[in-house]
Amino acid sequence: MRKPRRKAEETREDILRTADALFRERGIGKSSIADIAHELGMSPANVFKHFSSKTALIDAICDRHITHMIGRFNTVDTPAPPPEKLGLIVRRLMQAHMEDIRENAFFLEMIFLVTQTELESGFHYKQLIEDLFFNLIQDGVDAGVYHCTDSRKTSRYVAASFASVLHPIFLIHETQAELEERLNGLVDLANAALQNPLAK
Amino acid sequence: MRKPRRKAEETREDILRTADALFRERGIGKSSIADIAHELGMSPANVFKHFSSKTALIDAICDRHITHMIGRFNTVDTPAPPPEKLGLIVRRLMQAHMEDIRENAFFLEMIFLVTQTELESGFHYKQLIEDLFFNLIQDGVDAGVYHCTDSRKTSRYVAASFASVLHPIFLIHETQAELEERLNGLVDLANAALQNPLAK
Repeated sequence: MRKPRRKAEETREDILRTADALFRERGIGKSSIADIAHELGMSPANVFKHFSSKTALIDAICDRHITHMIGRFNTVDTPAPPPEKLGLIVRRLMQAHMEDIRENAFFLEMIFLVTQTELESGFHYKQLIEDLFFNLIQDGVDAGVYHCTDSRKTSRYVAASFASVLHPIFLIHETQAELEERLNGLVDLANAALQNPLAK
Repeated sequence: MRKPRRKAEETREDILRTADALFRERGIGKSSIADIAHELGMSPANVFKHFSSKTALIDAICDRHITHMIGRFNTVDTPAPPPEKLGLIVRRLMQAHMEDIRENAFFLEMIFLVTQTELESGFHYKQLIEDLFFNLIQDGVDAGVYHCTDSRKTSRYVAASFASVLHPIFLIHETQAELEERLNGLVDLANAALQNPLAK
Protein backbone atom coordinates (compact mmCIF):
# COMPACT_ATOMS: atom_id res chain seq x y z
CA MET A 1 0.00 0.00 0.00
CA ARG A 2 1.36 3.41 -0.88
CA LYS A 3 1.94 5.85 1.93
CA PRO A 4 -0.58 8.67 1.69
CA ARG A 5 1.12 11.71 0.21
CA ARG A 6 1.78 14.40 2.74
CA LYS A 7 -0.01 17.59 2.07
CA ALA A 8 2.11 20.16 0.25
CA GLU A 9 1.26 22.68 2.98
CA GLU A 10 2.79 20.45 5.65
CA THR A 11 5.99 19.92 3.69
CA ARG A 12 6.21 23.66 3.13
CA GLU A 13 5.91 24.24 6.88
CA ASP A 14 8.60 21.62 7.59
CA ILE A 15 10.97 23.30 5.16
CA LEU A 16 10.32 26.74 6.65
CA ARG A 17 10.83 25.51 10.20
CA THR A 18 14.02 23.62 9.36
CA ALA A 19 15.47 26.48 7.30
CA ASP A 20 14.65 28.95 10.08
CA ALA A 21 16.44 26.76 12.65
CA LEU A 22 19.47 26.26 10.38
CA PHE A 23 19.73 29.98 9.56
CA ARG A 24 19.62 30.82 13.26
CA GLU A 25 22.33 28.27 14.00
CA ARG A 26 24.75 28.91 11.12
CA GLY A 27 23.65 32.15 9.47
CA ILE A 28 22.06 32.49 6.04
CA GLY A 29 25.31 32.59 4.08
CA LYS A 30 26.47 29.26 5.48
CA SER A 31 23.22 27.32 5.00
CA SER A 32 22.49 25.92 1.56
CA ILE A 33 19.32 24.41 0.14
CA ALA A 34 21.25 21.12 0.11
CA ASP A 35 21.87 21.45 3.88
CA ILE A 36 18.19 22.11 4.52
CA ALA A 37 17.15 19.16 2.32
CA HIS A 38 19.66 16.91 4.14
CA GLU A 39 18.24 17.87 7.56
CA LEU A 40 14.77 16.95 6.32
CA GLY A 41 15.89 13.73 4.64
CA MET A 42 14.57 14.91 1.28
CA SER A 43 16.17 15.81 -2.03
CA PRO A 44 17.13 19.42 -2.87
CA ALA A 45 14.83 19.09 -5.91
CA ASN A 46 11.95 18.51 -3.54
CA VAL A 47 12.78 21.71 -1.62
CA PHE A 48 12.96 23.62 -4.90
CA LYS A 49 9.47 22.34 -5.74
CA HIS A 50 8.19 24.42 -2.83
CA PHE A 51 10.58 27.39 -3.00
CA SER A 52 12.06 28.40 -6.32
CA SER A 53 15.26 29.77 -4.72
CA LYS A 54 16.99 30.32 -1.41
CA THR A 55 15.90 33.96 -1.66
CA ALA A 56 12.25 32.88 -2.00
CA LEU A 57 12.69 30.75 1.12
CA ILE A 58 14.19 33.67 3.08
CA ASP A 59 11.36 35.90 1.86
CA ALA A 60 8.79 33.40 3.18
CA ILE A 61 10.54 33.08 6.56
CA CYS A 62 10.76 36.86 6.87
CA ASP A 63 7.10 37.25 5.95
CA ARG A 64 5.98 34.72 8.53
CA HIS A 65 8.03 36.46 11.19
CA ILE A 66 6.70 39.91 10.29
CA THR A 67 3.06 38.81 10.17
CA HIS A 68 3.40 37.17 13.56
CA MET A 69 5.17 40.16 15.12
CA ILE A 70 2.88 42.92 13.83
CA GLY A 71 -0.17 40.75 14.49
CA ARG A 72 0.59 40.98 18.21
CA PHE A 73 0.33 44.78 18.08
CA ASN A 74 -3.04 44.90 16.39
CA THR A 75 -4.57 43.16 19.36
CA VAL A 76 -3.10 45.58 21.93
CA ASP A 77 -6.20 47.02 23.49
CA THR A 78 -5.47 49.50 26.25
CA PRO A 79 -7.89 52.14 27.46
CA ALA A 80 -5.19 54.82 27.04
CA PRO A 81 -6.03 58.00 25.11
CA PRO A 82 -4.78 57.95 21.47
CA PRO A 83 -1.62 60.08 21.97
CA GLU A 84 -0.49 57.85 24.82
CA LYS A 85 -1.37 54.71 22.89
CA LEU A 86 0.71 55.90 19.92
CA GLY A 87 3.76 56.19 22.18
CA LEU A 88 3.05 52.80 23.73
CA ILE A 89 2.79 51.01 20.38
CA VAL A 90 5.90 52.61 18.85
CA ARG A 91 7.88 51.81 22.01
CA ARG A 92 6.80 48.16 21.91
CA LEU A 93 7.55 47.93 18.19
CA MET A 94 11.06 49.27 18.72
CA GLN A 95 11.64 46.84 21.59
CA ALA A 96 10.40 43.90 19.49
CA HIS A 97 12.84 44.88 16.71
CA MET A 98 15.70 45.19 19.20
CA GLU A 99 14.96 41.79 20.69
CA ASP A 100 14.94 40.26 17.22
CA ILE A 101 18.36 41.73 16.53
CA ARG A 102 19.74 40.53 19.86
CA GLU A 103 18.27 37.04 19.77
CA ASN A 104 18.67 35.99 16.15
CA ALA A 105 22.13 36.20 14.71
CA PHE A 106 20.64 35.85 11.24
CA PHE A 107 17.98 38.54 11.64
CA LEU A 108 20.12 41.40 10.39
CA GLU A 109 21.44 39.32 7.49
CA MET A 110 17.80 38.67 6.55
CA ILE A 111 16.74 42.32 6.82
CA PHE A 112 19.67 43.56 4.71
CA LEU A 113 18.85 40.98 2.07
CA VAL A 114 15.16 41.90 2.07
CA THR A 115 16.00 45.62 1.86
CA GLN A 116 18.57 45.20 -0.88
CA THR A 117 16.61 42.82 -3.06
CA GLU A 118 13.16 44.39 -2.64
CA LEU A 119 11.46 41.18 -1.59
CA GLU A 120 7.70 40.89 -1.13
CA SER A 121 8.05 40.58 2.65
CA GLY A 122 9.55 44.09 2.76
CA PHE A 123 6.46 45.54 1.10
CA HIS A 124 4.24 43.46 3.36
CA TYR A 125 6.01 44.82 6.44
CA LYS A 126 5.48 48.39 5.26
CA GLN A 127 1.80 47.66 4.62
CA LEU A 128 1.26 46.10 8.04
CA ILE A 129 3.00 48.99 9.83
CA GLU A 130 0.97 51.56 7.90
CA ASP A 131 -2.26 49.72 8.76
CA LEU A 132 -1.25 49.68 12.42
CA PHE A 133 -0.71 53.46 12.40
CA PHE A 134 -3.88 53.99 10.40
CA ASN A 135 -5.98 52.25 13.05
CA LEU A 136 -4.35 54.30 15.82
CA ILE A 137 -4.81 57.60 13.98
CA GLN A 138 -8.36 56.85 12.88
CA ASP A 139 -9.28 56.07 16.50
CA GLY A 140 -7.81 59.45 17.49
CA VAL A 141 -9.75 61.24 14.76
CA ASP A 142 -12.97 59.47 15.80
CA ALA A 143 -12.35 60.53 19.41
CA GLY A 144 -11.88 64.15 18.27
CA VAL A 145 -8.29 64.22 19.62
CA TYR A 146 -6.45 64.02 16.30
CA HIS A 147 -7.19 66.23 13.33
CA CYS A 148 -6.34 65.21 9.81
CA THR A 149 -8.17 65.29 6.54
CA ASP A 150 -6.79 62.03 5.14
CA SER A 151 -5.99 59.48 7.85
CA ARG A 152 -4.74 56.94 5.33
CA LYS A 153 -2.11 59.24 3.87
CA THR A 154 -1.20 60.78 7.22
CA SER A 155 -0.61 57.34 8.71
CA ARG A 156 1.93 56.63 5.97
CA TYR A 157 3.89 59.77 6.87
CA VAL A 158 3.65 59.14 10.60
CA ALA A 159 4.94 55.59 10.04
CA ALA A 160 7.80 57.01 7.93
CA SER A 161 8.69 59.57 10.61
CA PHE A 162 9.59 56.69 12.96
CA ALA A 163 12.08 55.04 10.54
CA SER A 164 15.05 56.07 12.69
CA VAL A 165 13.76 54.10 15.69
CA LEU A 166 12.29 51.16 13.77
CA HIS A 167 14.62 50.26 10.90
CA PRO A 168 17.31 47.87 12.17
CA ILE A 169 20.07 49.89 10.48
CA PHE A 170 19.51 52.60 13.11
CA LEU A 171 19.14 50.18 16.00
CA ILE A 172 22.41 48.27 15.76
CA HIS A 173 24.80 50.92 17.10
CA GLU A 174 22.80 53.42 19.14
CA THR A 175 22.55 53.05 22.90
CA GLN A 176 19.22 52.15 24.47
CA ALA A 177 19.11 55.57 26.17
CA GLU A 178 19.77 57.45 22.93
CA LEU A 179 17.07 55.47 21.12
CA GLU A 180 14.51 55.99 23.86
CA GLU A 181 15.12 59.72 23.98
CA ARG A 182 14.74 59.93 20.19
CA LEU A 183 11.60 57.79 20.29
CA ASN A 184 9.99 60.04 22.90
CA GLY A 185 10.89 63.11 20.85
CA LEU A 186 9.43 61.61 17.69
CA VAL A 187 6.23 60.57 19.49
CA ASP A 188 5.81 64.12 20.86
CA LEU A 189 6.41 65.52 17.37
CA ALA A 190 3.82 63.20 15.76
CA ASN A 191 1.30 63.91 18.52
CA ALA A 192 1.80 67.69 18.26
CA ALA A 193 1.22 67.47 14.50
CA LEU A 194 -1.82 65.18 14.78
CA GLN A 195 -3.41 67.31 17.49
CA ASN A 196 -2.92 70.58 15.64
CA PRO A 197 -6.37 71.70 14.51
CA LEU A 198 -4.72 74.18 12.15
CA ALA A 199 -2.72 71.57 10.22
CA LYS A 200 -3.67 70.93 6.65
CA MET B 1 70.87 69.99 -2.82
CA ARG B 2 67.93 68.25 -1.11
CA LYS B 3 64.49 68.90 -2.47
CA PRO B 4 62.43 70.89 0.04
CA ARG B 5 60.11 68.55 1.86
CA ARG B 6 56.53 68.90 0.76
CA LYS B 7 54.20 69.94 3.44
CA ALA B 8 52.39 67.05 5.13
CA GLU B 9 49.09 68.80 4.44
CA GLU B 10 49.75 68.78 0.68
CA THR B 11 50.66 65.09 0.65
CA ARG B 12 47.53 64.34 2.65
CA GLU B 13 45.44 66.19 0.07
CA ASP B 14 47.14 64.31 -2.78
CA ILE B 15 46.38 60.99 -1.14
CA LEU B 16 42.74 61.93 -0.52
CA ARG B 17 42.27 63.12 -4.11
CA THR B 18 43.91 60.04 -5.63
CA ALA B 19 42.06 57.60 -3.34
CA ASP B 20 38.77 59.34 -4.11
CA ALA B 21 39.39 59.03 -7.88
CA LEU B 22 40.43 55.38 -7.58
CA PHE B 23 37.43 54.47 -5.41
CA ARG B 24 35.11 56.10 -7.92
CA GLU B 25 36.73 54.20 -10.77
CA ARG B 26 37.09 50.74 -9.25
CA GLY B 27 35.04 50.74 -6.06
CA ILE B 28 36.40 50.66 -2.52
CA GLY B 29 36.74 46.88 -2.30
CA LYS B 30 38.97 46.72 -5.36
CA SER B 31 41.32 49.60 -4.46
CA SER B 32 44.14 48.85 -2.03
CA ILE B 33 46.49 51.22 -0.24
CA ALA B 34 49.21 49.75 -2.48
CA ASP B 35 47.22 50.82 -5.59
CA ILE B 36 46.81 54.34 -4.22
CA ALA B 37 50.52 54.57 -3.35
CA HIS B 38 51.42 53.27 -6.82
CA GLU B 39 49.28 55.95 -8.51
CA LEU B 40 51.07 58.61 -6.46
CA GLY B 41 54.55 57.16 -7.02
CA MET B 42 55.09 56.77 -3.31
CA SER B 43 55.51 53.82 -0.96
CA PRO B 44 52.52 52.30 0.87
CA ALA B 45 54.41 53.05 4.10
CA ASN B 46 54.28 56.74 3.20
CA VAL B 47 50.50 56.56 2.73
CA PHE B 48 50.18 54.81 6.11
CA LYS B 49 52.13 57.69 7.69
CA HIS B 50 49.15 59.91 6.85
CA PHE B 51 46.28 57.45 7.28
CA SER B 52 46.61 54.59 9.73
CA SER B 53 44.31 52.32 7.71
CA LYS B 54 42.19 52.16 4.59
CA THR B 55 39.16 52.71 6.84
CA ALA B 56 40.72 55.93 8.18
CA LEU B 57 41.23 57.06 4.59
CA ILE B 58 37.59 56.32 3.69
CA ASP B 59 36.47 58.15 6.84
CA ALA B 60 38.47 61.23 5.78
CA ILE B 61 37.08 61.17 2.22
CA CYS B 62 33.54 60.79 3.52
CA ASP B 63 34.04 63.62 6.01
CA ARG B 64 35.34 65.96 3.32
CA HIS B 65 32.40 65.13 1.11
CA ILE B 66 29.85 65.64 3.91
CA THR B 67 31.33 68.95 5.06
CA HIS B 68 31.29 70.27 1.51
CA MET B 69 27.74 69.11 0.85
CA ILE B 70 26.11 70.35 4.06
CA GLY B 71 28.14 73.55 3.88
CA ARG B 72 26.24 74.48 0.71
CA PHE B 73 22.94 74.34 2.59
CA ASN B 74 23.97 76.61 5.42
CA THR B 75 24.43 79.42 2.94
CA VAL B 76 20.98 78.99 1.36
CA ASP B 77 19.40 82.34 2.07
CA THR B 78 15.91 82.67 0.68
CA PRO B 79 13.34 85.16 1.91
CA ALA B 80 10.78 82.33 2.24
CA PRO B 81 8.87 81.97 5.53
CA PRO B 82 10.33 79.26 7.86
CA PRO B 83 7.83 76.46 7.05
CA GLU B 84 8.46 76.87 3.34
CA LYS B 85 12.21 77.10 3.86
CA LEU B 86 12.16 73.84 5.85
CA GLY B 87 10.55 72.07 2.88
CA LEU B 88 13.01 73.66 0.48
CA ILE B 89 16.08 72.59 2.44
CA VAL B 90 14.92 69.01 3.03
CA ARG B 91 14.03 68.67 -0.65
CA ARG B 92 17.48 69.92 -1.72
CA LEU B 93 19.18 67.64 0.80
CA MET B 94 17.33 64.61 -0.53
CA GLN B 95 18.20 65.56 -4.10
CA ALA B 96 21.88 66.00 -3.22
CA HIS B 97 21.90 62.53 -1.62
CA MET B 98 20.20 61.02 -4.66
CA GLU B 99 22.70 62.62 -7.02
CA ASP B 100 25.56 61.25 -4.94
CA ILE B 101 24.11 57.77 -5.20
CA ARG B 102 23.57 58.06 -8.95
CA GLU B 103 26.91 59.64 -9.80
CA ASN B 104 29.36 57.80 -7.56
CA ALA B 105 29.34 54.06 -7.80
CA PHE B 106 31.35 53.91 -4.58
CA PHE B 107 29.12 56.26 -2.58
CA LEU B 108 26.80 53.55 -1.24
CA GLU B 109 29.74 51.28 -0.44
CA MET B 110 31.19 54.19 1.57
CA ILE B 111 27.94 54.94 3.42
CA PHE B 112 27.38 51.31 4.39
CA LEU B 113 30.92 51.10 5.68
CA VAL B 114 30.55 54.32 7.66
CA THR B 115 27.21 53.17 9.10
CA GLN B 116 28.45 49.70 9.99
CA THR B 117 31.76 50.71 11.51
CA GLU B 118 30.59 53.84 13.33
CA LEU B 119 33.22 56.10 11.82
CA GLU B 120 33.74 59.69 12.93
CA SER B 121 32.35 61.05 9.66
CA GLY B 122 28.99 59.45 10.48
CA PHE B 123 28.78 61.39 13.74
CA HIS B 124 29.95 64.52 11.99
CA TYR B 125 27.19 64.17 9.39
CA LYS B 126 24.58 63.81 12.12
CA GLN B 127 25.95 66.89 13.88
CA LEU B 128 25.94 69.01 10.71
CA ILE B 129 22.37 67.97 9.83
CA GLU B 130 21.16 68.73 13.34
CA ASP B 131 22.83 72.15 13.23
CA LEU B 132 21.18 72.85 9.89
CA PHE B 133 17.74 72.04 11.32
CA PHE B 134 18.51 73.95 14.51
CA ASN B 135 19.18 77.14 12.53
CA LEU B 136 15.96 76.71 10.54
CA ILE B 137 13.85 76.03 13.62
CA GLN B 138 15.42 78.80 15.70
CA ASP B 139 14.68 81.26 12.87
CA GLY B 140 11.05 80.10 12.95
CA VAL B 141 10.85 80.49 16.72
CA ASP B 142 12.40 83.98 16.51
CA ALA B 143 9.82 84.89 13.83
CA GLY B 144 7.00 83.68 16.11
CA VAL B 145 5.94 81.04 13.56
CA TYR B 146 7.31 77.96 15.32
CA HIS B 147 6.70 77.14 18.96
CA CYS B 148 9.01 74.95 20.94
CA THR B 149 10.58 75.13 24.35
CA ASP B 150 13.93 73.57 23.43
CA SER B 151 14.95 74.26 19.82
CA ARG B 152 18.15 72.24 20.18
CA LYS B 153 16.38 69.05 21.23
CA THR B 154 13.46 69.58 18.85
CA SER B 155 15.83 69.99 15.90
CA ARG B 156 17.34 66.57 16.69
CA TYR B 157 13.90 64.95 16.52
CA VAL B 158 12.88 66.85 13.38
CA ALA B 159 16.13 65.75 11.71
CA ALA B 160 15.43 62.15 12.80
CA SER B 161 11.88 62.31 11.40
CA PHE B 162 13.34 62.78 7.91
CA ALA B 163 15.54 59.64 8.04
CA SER B 164 13.35 57.83 5.51
CA VAL B 165 13.98 60.47 2.83
CA LEU B 166 17.63 61.19 3.69
CA HIS B 167 19.36 57.94 4.58
CA PRO B 168 20.63 56.27 1.38
CA ILE B 169 19.21 52.90 2.39
CA PHE B 170 15.72 54.32 1.76
CA LEU B 171 16.69 56.11 -1.45
CA ILE B 172 18.08 53.25 -3.50
CA HIS B 173 14.86 51.47 -4.41
CA GLU B 174 11.99 53.92 -4.09
CA THR B 175 10.74 55.83 -7.11
CA GLN B 176 11.27 59.58 -7.31
CA ALA B 177 7.49 60.12 -7.12
CA GLU B 178 7.13 57.96 -4.02
CA LEU B 179 10.01 59.75 -2.28
CA GLU B 180 8.69 63.19 -3.12
CA GLU B 181 5.22 62.37 -1.85
CA ARG B 182 6.71 61.05 1.40
CA LEU B 183 8.96 64.09 1.72
CA ASN B 184 6.02 66.48 1.33
CA GLY B 185 4.03 64.50 3.90
CA LEU B 186 6.93 64.56 6.38
CA VAL B 187 7.48 68.30 5.87
CA ASP B 188 3.75 68.97 6.52
CA LEU B 189 3.94 66.80 9.62
CA ALA B 190 7.02 68.62 11.00
CA ASN B 191 5.51 72.01 10.20
CA ALA B 192 2.17 71.11 11.84
CA ALA B 193 4.05 70.02 14.97
CA LEU B 194 6.35 73.06 15.05
CA GLN B 195 3.48 75.48 14.51
CA ASN B 196 1.26 73.95 17.19
CA PRO B 197 1.17 76.45 20.06
CA LEU B 198 -0.23 73.71 22.30
CA ALA B 199 2.70 71.32 21.82
CA LYS B 200 4.94 70.65 24.77
